[in-house]
Amino acid sequence: MARALVLNGPNLNMLGIREPHLYGTQTLADARALCEAEAAALGMAMDFRQTNHEGVLIDWVHEAHTAFDGIVINAAGLARTSIILHDAVKAIGVPVIEIHITNIYQRDAWRPPSMLSKSVLGLICGFGLEVYPLGLRALHGALAKRKTG
Amino acid sequence: MARALVLNGPNLNMLGIREPHLYGTQTLADARALCEAEAAALGMAMDFRQTNHEGVLIDWVHEAHTAFDGIVINAAGLARTSIILHDAVKAIGVPVIEIHITNIYQRDAWRPPSMLSKSVLGLICGFGLEVYPLGLRALHGALAKRKTG
Amino acid sequence: MARALVLNGPNLNMLGIREPHLYGTQTLADARALCEAEAAALGMAMDFRQTNHEGVLIDWVHEAHTAFDGIVINAAGLARTSIILHDAVKAIGVPVIEIHITNIYQRDAWRPPSMLSKSVLGLICGFGLEVYPLGLRALHGALAKRKTG
Amino acid sequence: MARALVLNGPNLNMLGIREPHLYGTQTLADARALCEAEAAALGMAMDFRQTNHEGVLIDWVHEAHTAFDGIVINAAGLARTSIILHDAVKAIGVPVIEIHITNIYQRDAWRPPSMLSKSVLGLICGFGLEVYPLGLRALHGALAKRKTG
Amino acid sequence: MARALVLNGPNLNMLGIREPHLYGTQTLADARALCEAEAAALGMAMDFRQTNHEGVLIDWVHEAHTAFDGIVINAAGLARTSIILHDAVKAIGVPVIEIHITNIYQRDAWRPPSMLSKSVLGLICGFGLEVYPLGLRALHGALAKRKTG
Amino acid sequence: MARALVLNGPNLNMLGIREPHLYGTQTLADARALCEAEAAALGMAMDFRQTNHEGVLIDWVHEAHTAFDGIVINAAGLARTSIILHDAVKAIGVPVIEIHITNIYQRDAWRPPSMLSKSVLGLICGFGLEVYPLGLRALHGALAKRKTG
Amino acid sequence: MARALVLNGPNLNMLGIREPHLYGTQTLADARALCEAEAAALGMAMDFRQTNHEGVLIDWVHEAHTAFDGIVINAAGLARTSIILHDAVKAIGVPVIEIHITNIYQRDAWRPPSMLSKSVLGLICGFGLEVYPLGLRALHGALAKRKTG
Amino acid sequence: MARALVLNGPNLNMLGIREPHLYGTQTLADARALCEAEAAALGMAMDFRQTNHEGVLIDWVHEAHTAFDGIVINAAGLARTSIILHDAVKAIGVPVIEIHITNIYQRDAWRPPSMLSKSVLGLICGFGLEVYPLGLRALHGALAKRKTG
Amino acid sequence: MARALVLNGPNLNMLGIREPHLYGTQTLADARALCEAEAAALGMAMDFRQTNHEGVLIDWVHEAHTAFDGIVINAAGLARTSIILHDAVKAIGVPVIEIHITNIYQRDAWRPPSMLSKSVLGLICGFGLEVYPLGLRALHGALAKRKTG
Amino acid sequence: MARALVLNGPNLNMLGIREPHLYGTQTLADARALCEAEAAALGMAMDFRQTNHEGVLIDWVHEAHTAFDGIVINAAGLARTSIILHDAVKAIGVPVIEIHITNIYQRDAWRPPSMLSKSVLGLICGFGLEVYPLGLRALHGALAKRKTG
Amino acid sequence: MARALVLNGPNLNMLGIREPHLYGTQTLADARALCEAEAAALGMAMDFRQTNHEGVLIDWVHEAHTAFDGIVINAAGLARTSIILHDAVKAIGVPVIEIHITNIYQRDAWRPPSMLSKSVLGLICGFGLEVYPLGLRALHGALAKRKTG
Amino acid sequence: MARALVLNGPNLNMLGIREPHLYGTQTLADARALCEAEAAALGMAMDFRQTNHEGVLIDWVHEAHTAFDGIVINAAGLARTSIILHDAVKAIGVPVIEIHITNIYQRDAWRPPSMLSKSVLGLICGFGLEVYPLGLRALHGALAKRKTG
Repeated sequence: MARALVLNGPNLNMLGIREPHLYGTQTLADARALCEAEAAALGMAMDFRQTNHEGVLIDWVHEAHTAFDGIVINAAGLARTSIILHDAVKAIGVPVIEIHITNIYQRDAWRPPSMLSKSVLGLICGFGLEVYPLGLRALHGALAKRKTG
Repeated sequence: MARALVLNGPNLNMLGIREPHLYGTQTLADARALCEAEAAALGMAMDFRQTNHEGVLIDWVHEAHTAFDGIVINAAGLARTSIILHDAVKAIGVPVIEIHITNIYQRDAWRPPSMLSKSVLGLICGFGLEVYPLGLRALHGALAKRKTG
Repeated sequence: MARALVLNGPNLNMLGIREPHLYGTQTLADARALCEAEAAALGMAMDFRQTNHEGVLIDWVHEAHTAFDGIVINAAGLARTSIILHDAVKAIGVPVIEIHITNIYQRDAWRPPSMLSKSVLGLICGFGLEVYPLGLRALHGALAKRKTG
Repeated sequence: MARALVLNGPNLNMLGIREPHLYGTQTLADARALCEAEAAALGMAMDFRQTNHEGVLIDWVHEAHTAFDGIVINAAGLARTSIILHDAVKAIGVPVIEIHITNIYQRDAWRPPSMLSKSVLGLICGFGLEVYPLGLRALHGALAKRKTG
Repeated sequence: MARALVLNGPNLNMLGIREPHLYGTQTLADARALCEAEAAALGMAMDFRQTNHEGVLIDWVHEAHTAFDGIVINAAGLARTSIILHDAVKAIGVPVIEIHITNIYQRDAWRPPSMLSKSVLGLICGFGLEVYPLGLRALHGALAKRKTG
Repeated sequence: MARALVLNGPNLNMLGIREPHLYGTQTLADARALCEAEAAALGMAMDFRQTNHEGVLIDWVHEAHTAFDGIVINAAGLARTSIILHDAVKAIGVPVIEIHITNIYQRDAWRPPSMLSKSVLGLICGFGLEVYPLGLRALHGALAKRKTG
Repeated sequence: MARALVLNGPNLNMLGIREPHLYGTQTLADARALCEAEAAALGMAMDFRQTNHEGVLIDWVHEAHTAFDGIVINAAGLARTSIILHDAVKAIGVPVIEIHITNIYQRDAWRPPSMLSKSVLGLICGFGLEVYPLGLRALHGALAKRKTG
Repeated sequence: MARALVLNGPNLNMLGIREPHLYGTQTLADARALCEAEAAALGMAMDFRQTNHEGVLIDWVHEAHTAFDGIVINAAGLARTSIILHDAVKAIGVPVIEIHITNIYQRDAWRPPSMLSKSVLGLICGFGLEVYPLGLRALHGALAKRKTG
Repeated sequence: MARALVLNGPNLNMLGIREPHLYGTQTLADARALCEAEAAALGMAMDFRQTNHEGVLIDWVHEAHTAFDGIVINAAGLARTSIILHDAVKAIGVPVIEIHITNIYQRDAWRPPSMLSKSVLGLICGFGLEVYPLGLRALHGALAKRKTG
Repeated sequence: MARALVLNGPNLNMLGIREPHLYGTQTLADARALCEAEAAALGMAMDFRQTNHEGVLIDWVHEAHTAFDGIVINAAGLARTSIILHDAVKAIGVPVIEIHITNIYQRDAWRPPSMLSKSVLGLICGFGLEVYPLGLRALHGALAKRKTG
Repeated sequence: MARALVLNGPNLNMLGIREPHLYGTQTLADARALCEAEAAALGMAMDFRQTNHEGVLIDWVHEAHTAFDGIVINAAGLARTSIILHDAVKAIGVPVIEIHITNIYQRDAWRPPSMLSKSVLGLICGFGLEVYPLGLRALHGALAKRKTG
Repeated sequence: MARALVLNGPNLNMLGIREPHLYGTQTLADARALCEAEAAALGMAMDFRQTNHEGVLIDWVHEAHTAFDGIVINAAGLARTSIILHDAVKAIGVPVIEIHITNIYQRDAWRPPSMLSKSVLGLICGFGLEVYPLGLRALHGALAKRKTG
């Protein structure tokens, strides 16, 4: 049974409170519930975590090197600035999928583009909390292709 | 029954021949088959087209204003340069989802970022031909949310 | 009797539907009517056309080399990106006047400035559909100056 | 009877002397005469002024807040650099129309684009002294639309 | 008794009228009243002036070299573009404090940052008219430190 | 009684030791004492903290959502680079005031401007440790305006 | 017998009329005649075409995948802006040689450099219509090297 | 007898007081004395003026069109930012020579280069007050060449 | 006996696993062994640490202010982005030497240059794990020069 | 009989050794042989030289002013950086043709474009050593056109 | 008796031949004659040299460290690109004055500004060959000030 | 016995005289002595040279292709601008190590970064003359690894 790690970065604990015109009123618990349902439907094991600490996020990415088959990651603002998160993703041998709740290309012009995108398998953004189950499905497909490919 | 329009832009008729180390050896017919299967599973009607002409692509986007409930579009290189395609998407009242076979953020540094992303609901890229059914599923979810939202 | 060619570029067929907070609710038929009235008042013949195809627009510009005395052109988004439209205007011997319905210097910061402006006689923008008759009047004045100059 | 204020910025007192290959040999008195004729034809009152002092220009723009119905302004080089002129235009409640004798997009590459354009209703440039009566006509139309709109 | 000079630059005479969603509905007279009250509380003499003329503002800054112990200046848009105002501040031997009613780092992206900030002791912005008494208090503290330092 | 949270970011524990030609010889304990005195004078409760960990700083900002009425923050170098700190400030519903001991616009040219400024109510910098009590006074004023506004 | 496809892009139908100080007074028929003579001398079959439509140009490039041994292309202004033309050249398996009548590095500074150059075998420009036979000769040499290489 | 106009821009009235490590301790009266001596030696009439007002400086430049044979101008910081001063110099028919006391290419990196240099005959900078007599001598030479050339 | 602190930043715990074509197959334990041998040869005490947490790295740098005579630091990706790490190095009074296993000037073009280099004594990169003993030797030399200098 | 000077810049003496995946395994002697054959075929005299010294290259370019009818130059890396080589080409009255063995627009992104191209008649690149005889043929054509033109 | 070294860089041996619309028809021998006359008038010894070799120019600058009291240098295009020439000027203890025949700020926009200006005492440009005697006079004044200063 | 070539570029003959606050008071003879001692200690043959001529430096680099086992090079300012030196290093088959006496990342902001770094094995800078023996030691290690690797 494939093991998926779903990681959430800074400020995502504030979902539902944080700028609801952008992020909606659902909370991270709702995202977790969507992931649990999708993982069950796909027959995957799933671990769901959140942290505001870049170092913790990197420790968790490293952990996947031996303990998980793939990562779905919503790195929030760190996707745009963290070279070391990018490098952590490059350092491990498992597929990583980047997700964002909003369309990150319609945000403030001063925000730099995602650096994380340069290291991941693929990207899904803009569909609200639906990006979580879509991310798991994309991971499921990638793992299937690896096995048969 | 929701009607989806799947549009393919320039050079996608060359899939399977074109730089196979990037795009794989499957053809556009394979993409169409994946779309047909996913549309059937989701209970959607689906129309699948390709053109090398920017003007034709814009005519088709306009057509969706009255004849379709949503668009999944792989605009290929036009996504990066065509302001008028961007404006066409803004001009119609139906959701549009951008897809790309490759992770467009890992391509040549001289390529400008997608301008199309500024006008669409969301973006999916990097998963090979799997982006087609993922795009349809994301569209299906968006239409469902509109109805209930 | 002076012959004016009034050209409209991509997405202008969607006037009235397209982002009405920017472009208003009048349609391209209204613009044509304004042009017909102004041309009649100025004693000019006038031909009014629209296309979403850059190549067609260039063919029409070339046509003016022998068949018209001047062009009033609303190139829409192509004004900002099309070097070949710019070059077409430079290639013919008749005056060309650029018009835009909105003030193009108050649009999204990511839009590049008009390249077309580098090739035309002059520019009028920001007055809604009034830019059409103003453009014809400016053309009329330019043709008068040529004759007497 | 609508009251129009026509303002001329630095170096326009040198018209006719100043770089005649760019600006022609007509003088500011000719521009005034064109404005007087057009204002009479449109049934508008008109005040025509020139100064080389940015501060005086701003004082005059402020004056329009209570004493005029609209401004036609040829700010010359100040259009490209003066944030405070831009802010003055934003501060008053009457429509302002920017004009330039030459096509300002065909001037030296080192000149920054007009900042003034970000604050005005619309822009007319490139038709020689004809931009003055065209500016008044555009103002007349804008005031008419306000009344009826 | 310390003598403070409070200077106001272009368009601040329009406070209360000018873009009230940004600057509020209070007027420059209100700012003067706040300054008078704060100066009295701090035991300082205070002179309060406004001009739309950059040259006058520079003359006043020079005046402080001999006639005042410090300046609180709201240079408005000139803070962003005037090298000569910056140089005037560097030329005199008294502390200068820059204030702005709005948070100048949340304004239009095309506005350049304040050049004036490179020459002043410190900066206070974003608190509405409260920046005036805060500026005087900061000046008072700086003069106190100079005496004892 | 209003509750203020005063936050200090990386390297501020080194005040007094760190580059004394820039930051002076007073220590963070001196800053705390100034805050305590000012808070007492203003009738505010005050909590004063320091950390070198960006994640901890974000946790503390989130804490203010429910436990404080406002924040005065000296984010040190993080103000210039941390998008996630910026986003944390946007995520909570209480006013945040940015302070810096030095005039951050007179530092090395290679340092990017403060991103934090885009999210805060206002900014005070350049007055040495006096920025702490000035920040508290500005917060006090902002809270008063909220109550009455 | 090797088959060469000579393609001409937008505005080249206007050769002889278009800016003769840059492009000379010879016409596209002259270019065709030079190609016919050179092809005959080299023992190659040759097809010579022109279009103002980017989409048609791309269709023709694709056609070469099966029907020609190499392409000599004067893409005119499209060389500088068309990513999709660049991608079409990369998609086919035959050598492509870029030519321009003028030295494209001595044109207006605002024109971006050729993107097409990134996809072609080599480039010849600046020798007037002589670039056509030079292009064919270079193609002939490249095909010879392929056979023997 | 040739008539020279020596113009001094903003803050030069502060010479001797203003940043003496850059500008020295001599005053503008010393500069005037050097000019008077050099003019006498060269047999030229000379008028020496200073203003902090850009508008006044432009009025004086215009005055030279009829009243002087050449200008030596130290525009101070306005040289770097004033397009309208640049345009004033282009508008008159007499030679203008730009001088600066300091080497303007060794000043702060954020200062833009002199725009004025684009309009003047030549430039002399970096030799302290000696640039005044050197400027007059250069003007004398230029006038002599005009007469004989 | 001089005390050296050898610090390792994010992802260096993955040495041997992480992109071995860039970083080789040796591990951080090998680096530690090289350091221990070199320190012994040079007669220095040495402490060797690694963390993925920027805050921890800064705490350790501060610790050196009192507990070590110098630092050799491989900050990995943080060297390029962390202003606060740069500032921490500037805040302490002991020499710091920057090392990197790879030649950091031959990495991806999108990576910004090292900011850390602006604060350190010197830099050694590109020699694989040999940079560790070279860094210690350079530190040893620097400490010797301080003593005698 | 026309006299051609074929010049080779820095590092071309290393042809065959230098990065053979880019430059092939043929040597400069092979290039000379190709030139000798082509010159003989075209009935031209030819001189073939190489130097690693920019100053020598400029001396040779100057020599052509009196001693040769045209130059074919492979300036290698100097084409991208040497303003003085560019100026030397502009200083002489004979046609100069720039050649490069590789397609210089497919090299490292950090390399600036050729400055030499701004001064030469035309450019040929990307065809391996074939660019030498192609360059001579282009020169032959240009000299023929001069005679008849 | 003060000893002046007058240095001329690349392509100045072509004066009179080289682009005479920019540089005039006088030759370097004329410049030498002007220098000899001025040096005699000022009572200075003078050495006048030219080279196309950057290395030779640097050797000569170094020579001045012991053998001359000052340098007047026309470095031609090297002024804009040669860091090592800049560094050579900084390395010696004698004043260096930069001259250019043309106004270097009115040349092609793509030419970078003079780097040499960052190292010299002052700059004179734009007065044709008159810059040579003006440069000597400026050097004479600088040496006089040194003696008395 | 391994043969090392130690190369020194422009202005390094001025060591001890040249800006001693940056480069110290030791001379190039001291650097040579340090190299001789280190080479002896490492059992290497060593050749030590200096030139101000870029062409000579390139000739020497080429010489290493056959006559030396590695190069330690202090290219001074040429490291930042010389593409042809970069290319020379790429052209030979022996390891090259770049050294600089100062920390080149703490020099003037206008200096471009080292281009040479893109071609060398590794870089050592900032340790004064100690970079010479450190460079030799690094070369010694690299040669050892090659033999055993």
